[in-house]
Amino acid sequence: MSEIKVPAEQLSAFCIACFVKLGLSPEDARGTAGNLIFANLRGVDSHGVIRLKVYLDRLRAGGFKLQARPQIVSEQESCALIDAQDGVGQVAATVAMKLAIAKAGKSGVGVVSVRNSNHFGASAYYAMQALEHGMIGLAATNAGPTMAPTGGREGRLGNNALAVAVPAGNRAPIVLDMATGAVAWGKIFLAQQEKRRIPTTWALDRSGLPTDDPDAAADHGLIQPFGGYKGYGLSLLIDLLTGVLSGGGFSTHVRTLYQELETPSQVAQTCAALRIDAFMPLEEFCRRVDAIIDEMRSCPTAPGVERVFVPGEIEEETERRRRAEGIPLRAALQEELRSLGAQLGVAAPF
Amino acid sequence: MSEIKVPAEQLSAFCIACFVKLGLSPEDARGTAGNLIFANLRGVDSHGVIRLKVYLDRLRAGGFKLQARPQIVSEQESCALIDAQDGVGQVAATVAMKLAIAKAGKSGVGVVSVRNSNHFGASAYYAMQALEHGMIGLAATNAGPTMAPTGGREGRLGNNALAVAVPAGNRAPIVLDMATGAVAWGKIFLAQQEKRRIPTTWALDRSGLPTDDPDAAADHGLIQPFGGYKGYGLSLLIDLLTGVLSGGGFSTHVRTLYQELETPSQVAQTCAALRIDAFMPLEEFCRRVDAIIDEMRSCPTAPGVERVFVPGEIEEETERRRRAEGIPLRAALQEELRSLGAQLGVAAPF
Repeated sequence: MSEIKVPAEQLSAFCIACFVKLGLSPEDARGTAGNLIFANLRGVDSHGVIRLKVYLDRLRAGGFKLQARPQIVSEQESCALIDAQDGVGQVAATVAMKLAIAKAGKSGVGVVSVRNSNHFGASAYYAMQALEHGMIGLAATNAGPTMAPTGGREGRLGNNALAVAVPAGNRAPIVLDMATGAVAWGKIFLAQQEKRRIPTTWALDRSGLPTDDPDAAADHGLIQPFGGYKGYGLSLLIDLLTGVLSGGGFSTHVRTLYQELETPSQVAQTCAALRIDAFMPLEEFCRRVDAIIDEMRSCPTAPGVERVFVPGEIEEETERRRRAEGIPLRAALQEELRSLGAQLGVAAPF
Repeated sequence: MSEIKVPAEQLSAFCIACFVKLGLSPEDARGTAGNLIFANLRGVDSHGVIRLKVYLDRLRAGGFKLQARPQIVSEQESCALIDAQDGVGQVAATVAMKLAIAKAGKSGVGVVSVRNSNHFGASAYYAMQALEHGMIGLAATNAGPTMAPTGGREGRLGNNALAVAVPAGNRAPIVLDMATGAVAWGKIFLAQQEKRRIPTTWALDRSGLPTDDPDAAADHGLIQPFGGYKGYGLSLLIDLLTGVLSGGGFSTHVRTLYQELETPSQVAQTCAALRIDAFMPLEEFCRRVDAIIDEMRSCPTAPGVERVFVPGEIEEETERRRRAEGIPLRAALQEELRSLGAQLGVAAPF
């Protein structure tokens, strides 16, 4: 059994059916599946249907509460606080982003923070919802403590992530979606298999020292924040603007996705929108974004570099290709999805 | 002649007198000097009185317009656009931050962008103005193009900077103030003098390749964005939220401080404020910030590391010391300031 390609609509329908069988409302199921499929389409497979299993496990175990309805706790002209009631992160963040967009429509800016949430998948999904409204969108999340502050050797901060989407004119929108860790664990595991050294900026060994040995990193080591102490500062800032500001979990109080499946993870998120025509006509802004994109792309390249990209450009190209050709699924993932479907009486679309 | 320490008030009065002699209003002179002295007090000497000479040169040559009054171009409930009229950056950014704070006081959030500005010194100065109002403050600026996008080998982005200040309770506020470059040129010049290799993440040689040779970096090379492509993305994002959004200069249209002294530099800034009690009582928030600070500080340290710091902590300690002991000035800087004063008939306070 080798890699196959599955149309996005079929894979999405499969995820929706699984969620609904477990008791999620059709609307919540569509939103959650939409986020997973979005990630796969854009080539961010780490946040795609590979997460379906743990989502289903958490829905069953109680770590994601099936019947949760996000509640607005407090509200001002330009900001609001939402309690996700320990439901699926995608559901609460979609509500939050909608509210931020509505507020920005009136006052120019909207900032909505969410507590008692859970893993919400790819951040860009929410940030990009602002685009069709002529707005800049932002979404940030904290996560379970897997990184140390600079100089430390124990997890105190999550691989907290931030996405910002900026509309363009004739070009694809600029979409920056980044975690604050230097690297995903997957790359370190790969280096282990291939017996390659890793850059000393990627990980710490168990004593807290930078290491170029992937085995030392994997043996109770930690991922480093990207870019040294600046990445640490940004990760802390995201936790302040999500967990601390919302009244939710922060630092060591946030749980990771794959542990304690029956316990809500106390994740917090913040979504924001900025209406562009509060500053200048949207068309003018989009022309200016096209111009700065062209400034980047026209930059002479270093030896061995074919093209200069702007953030989101590679993902946009991947999305166009995968919408046409389908989402590639490796054999092991096909097997996992088929088995998940079988447990719930949902036929896999492959 | 060796290093001396000068009381902040005396050094500030000297800068104010120089600015006023050139024709800046006393209020604008105080604000601008306040920003330079703030940087010195916090140990950010690169943005302190070492900049007085180029500021005076630009005020004389016309690159900073003496009589400029920042004008509000457009305004909404929660955001505004200001034209700095090519005046001193400190003056316009102070107006912008005040307006952002006023807007946040009403709606919860304020975002004010500034075009036709100039160098505005240390970003934290503006972000921290939100603190006494029980708000989180943010200030960002673009700068002349000195960095290449990832994969490029020509300047397309500035060492764009961002500061965010978050109030705490019994601890010092968290103040993250960071440029998006991996390192200041000064560190590369130092490595040249000491004939030391530099990390390959700091600079590119003139062909655009990472180099560990400080001489190759200094010979028409470029500083790299910090943290690789993520730092590039953040630098581009700051330019989008300042230069592009404000209708001001961006990318290659921004001029650097030390060239073309007679030409306004087309720098743009954005200031923002978020009112905390729109989300929860300020006291509760401050307790939570203290708690996350303690989570960081209590992290067990890596071998050889004495303490874990939070952003702004070192600067706060430096400020306390320098307020008591004075601001250290090396011989060459004393000489420069004395000579600047002599040209204007202002006696140096040392």
